[in-house]
Amino acid sequence: METTTIESSEVKTAIARLREKAPFVYGLTNYVAANLSANVLLALGAGPAIGSAPGWAAAFPAGAGAVWINGAALMSSVTPDELDEAAATAHKAGTPWVLDPVAIGAGASEYDAILASLLKYKPAIIRGNASEIAALSGGAGGSGVDSTLDSSEVIDTVKDLARRLDAVVAVSGEVDYLCDPAGRATAVPGGDAKMPQVTGTGCSLGALSAAFCAVVDPFTAAATAHAAFATAGKRAGERATGTASFAIAFVDELSLL
Amino acid sequence: METTTIESSEVKTAIARLREKAPFVYGLTNYVAANLSANVLLALGAGPAIGSAPGWAAAFPAGAGAVWINGAALMSSVTPDELDEAAATAHKAGTPWVLDPVAIGAGASEYDAILASLLKYKPAIIRGNASEIAALSGGAGGSGVDSTLDSSEVIDTVKDLARRLDAVVAVSGEVDYLCDPAGRATAVPGGDAKMPQVTGTGCSLGALSAAFCAVVDPFTAAATAHAAFATAGKRAGERATGTASFAIAFVDELSLL
Amino acid sequence: METTTIESSEVKTAIARLREKAPFVYGLTNYVAANLSANVLLALGAGPAIGSAPGWAAAFPAGAGAVWINGAALMSSVTPDELDEAAATAHKAGTPWVLDPVAIGAGASEYDAILASLLKYKPAIIRGNASEIAALSGGAGGSGVDSTLDSSEVIDTVKDLARRLDAVVAVSGEVDYLCDPAGRATAVPGGDAKMPQVTGTGCSLGALSAAFCAVVDPFTAAATAHAAFATAGKRAGERATGTASFAIAFVDELSLL
Repeated sequence: METTTIESSEVKTAIARLREKAPFVYGLTNYVAANLSANVLLALGAGPAIGSAPGWAAAFPAGAGAVWINGAALMSSVTPDELDEAAATAHKAGTPWVLDPVAIGAGASEYDAILASLLKYKPAIIRGNASEIAALSGGAGGSGVDSTLDSSEVIDTVKDLARRLDAVVAVSGEVDYLCDPAGRATAVPGGDAKMPQVTGTGCSLGALSAAFCAVVDPFTAAATAHAAFATAGKRAGERATGTASFAIAFVDELSLL
Repeated sequence: METTTIESSEVKTAIARLREKAPFVYGLTNYVAANLSANVLLALGAGPAIGSAPGWAAAFPAGAGAVWINGAALMSSVTPDELDEAAATAHKAGTPWVLDPVAIGAGASEYDAILASLLKYKPAIIRGNASEIAALSGGAGGSGVDSTLDSSEVIDTVKDLARRLDAVVAVSGEVDYLCDPAGRATAVPGGDAKMPQVTGTGCSLGALSAAFCAVVDPFTAAATAHAAFATAGKRAGERATGTASFAIAFVDELSLL
Repeated sequence: METTTIESSEVKTAIARLREKAPFVYGLTNYVAANLSANVLLALGAGPAIGSAPGWAAAFPAGAGAVWINGAALMSSVTPDELDEAAATAHKAGTPWVLDPVAIGAGASEYDAILASLLKYKPAIIRGNASEIAALSGGAGGSGVDSTLDSSEVIDTVKDLARRLDAVVAVSGEVDYLCDPAGRATAVPGGDAKMPQVTGTGCSLGALSAAFCAVVDPFTAAATAHAAFATAGKRAGERATGTASFAIAFVDELSLL
C-alpha cells in the first residue's frame, strides 16, 4: 500500500493552497470538540463557523467551501432536522462534506439511525475510528466514543465501505488507512500515543479533512489532513511532557506547517 | 482621534476596580467561545456564569453587575425567548449589557432579525468586527464569523451607529475604534496577527467589555477591555511561536495585568 | 479529622487501578467545563463520553463504569427529562453516579428543584463548593457559580447531608472536606490560589470523582479525586506564572501522577 507523509508533494501543495485560499468552512459538531476543531482549522488558515443558530444550517453550507458534520452535534442543540438540512443543502449546492459518525454503534440505535440516514446526501469523506467504521459497515461498535478495535483490523472494511458508499473512507489508529471508491489506498504513519488522551483530536481531524476538500479532491484532502495530524502529533510528542502541553504543542505544530 | 492604551490612567483605574470588586457577570454566548470567555474574565478578577439553564435568564441578569449577550448563544441551546428575557431583565433591572452580534449579515436573515430585535433593550455597548458593524448598520456582512472589511473602513459607520442606537459602539481590527453616542471616539492600537487565529477572542472581548461595565462607565469599560486585549495580545505575540501557545500566553498576560 | 494526600496508600492504589482498568465514564455536564472535564479523565486513563444525543442518556449509563451529572448540563441542550433518565438508568443498573449541583441556590428556583428531584436516584457522591452544599441543605446559596462561604464553615452541614442523603458529600475550598454516611470524614489540603481562576476545575473534579467510582468505593473515589486535584494544583502553581499556563500545567501534572 502507498504511504502518505508530510513530505508528499500533493500534501505540500494542499497545505499551501489552504493557506492561500483561506476558505470558509462550516461545521456542525459537539461542544466538547468545537473549540479545538476551530483552532485546528484556524492554525492552517481556514475560516471556520460552527453550529446551528436559526437559519445557519440552511444558509451557510451553500456559501461554504466545505462542510463537516460530526454526529455528536446532536448533543449540542442541533436537531436531526438541522443535521439533515445541512447535509441536504451541501449536497444540493455541490459543497463537499465530511461525515464523522462519532460513537456510532456504541449502543444508542436511535442516534445510529439518524447518522445512517445522512449517507443519502453522499459525503465526500467518512472518517472514524476502527469501531465506528466497523459499526457503519454493519458490525459491532465500541464503548462510548473510544474504539475497541485497531485500525489494521478494519482495512478490508474500509475498502468495502468506500466502494459501497462511493466516498473516501478513513480510519484513525496507530497507523491511519484511507481508501477511495476506486480502490486507491494509502497508509499514514506517525502520530503519538498522547493523541487519544486529548479530547476532540479525532473530531478535529474530520473538520480539517473538510477544510482541505475546499481546495483539493477528497482523497488528497483526507490524506493531507491525516498526514498533517500525524506529523504535528509526532513533533509535539517529542517536546511535551504531559497531555495538556502536548495538545498545545500539537496545534502550534499545525500552525507552523 | 484620541488613543487609549494600557498606560491611560482611566484604564489602570478600571482594571484595579475590577480586581477589587470581583463582580458577578452573566453571559449568554456560544459553546465555541464560552470556555475562553470565562477564563478571560477570571483572569481579570470577575466571576462569570454562562448559559440558560431553567430560570437562569430570568434570575441572573438582575443580580449581576453586568451581562453580555453573544448572538451565537442561539446555537447553544439558548432560545430566542431566553435571549429576549435576558436582555429585557437586564434592561429593567438597570444592569448594563453588551451585545455582540457575531456573524450578523452573513446570510441567515432569521438569525439577523432576532439579534436586531434586542436593540430595543438598549445595550450599553455593541461590539463586533467591521463586517458585523456594517451589517448592523444596514450594509453587507462578511462570510461566516470572519470580517471581509477592515476596521478603518467603518469608522464613520461606528460613529453613526453610536449616535443612532445611543450606545458605545466598538469595532475590532488591526486598530480598534470606539465611539460613544456624544461623538467621543478613541483608537486602540496593538494586538497581534495571531489573535484572529485563536477562536473566540472576539467573543471574549465582548464578555470583558461587559465585566468592566460593572465597575466603570460603558465608554471607559469598552476602551479598557480593548486596551487590555491589545496589550496582552502584543506581549503574547512577542514570546509565542504557534497559535495555541499564543492563546495560553495571551490569557496569562491578562492575568498579570 | 483524618487527612488524605497523594501519599495515602488507598489513593495510590485507586490511581493505579484507574489507569489499568480504563473504564468508560459517561457524563452530562455543561459546555463551559466539558472539554476540561474530558481531558482530566483522559489524563488519568478513563474514557469519557459526554452529552445527550438521541438515545445516549438511556443507553450509556448502563454500560458505563460510572456516571457524573453536573446540573448545568441543563444549559447545554440536556432536558430535565434526559437528566432524570440518565440518573434513573444509572440507579437501576447499579452504576455509581456523582451529582454536582453547580449554582444551586443562586436564585433560579426552577433549576434548583430539578436538581433536588434527582436525589431520589441515590447519588454515590455529591460534590460542590460551600455555598452549593449549604443550599442543598436548605440554606442560602452563592452568586452565580461562585461560593460566598468558605469550606470550613460548612463541615457540620457536610456531615449532616451525608447521613441524611446516604451519600459521600464533598466540599471544595482552600481545604476540601469529605464525609460518608457513617460519619467517616477526611480533609484534603493542597491546591493553589489559581485553581478557582480556571473555569471548570470544580466541574472536572465531579467528573474525576465519578471515574474513580468505577474502580473503588465512593469514599475512596472522592478522596482520591480531591487528593489528585490538590497535588496537581500545588505542583502546577509552583511552575506557572499566569492562569492559562497554570491550567495546562495542572492537567499535565494529573497525567503524570
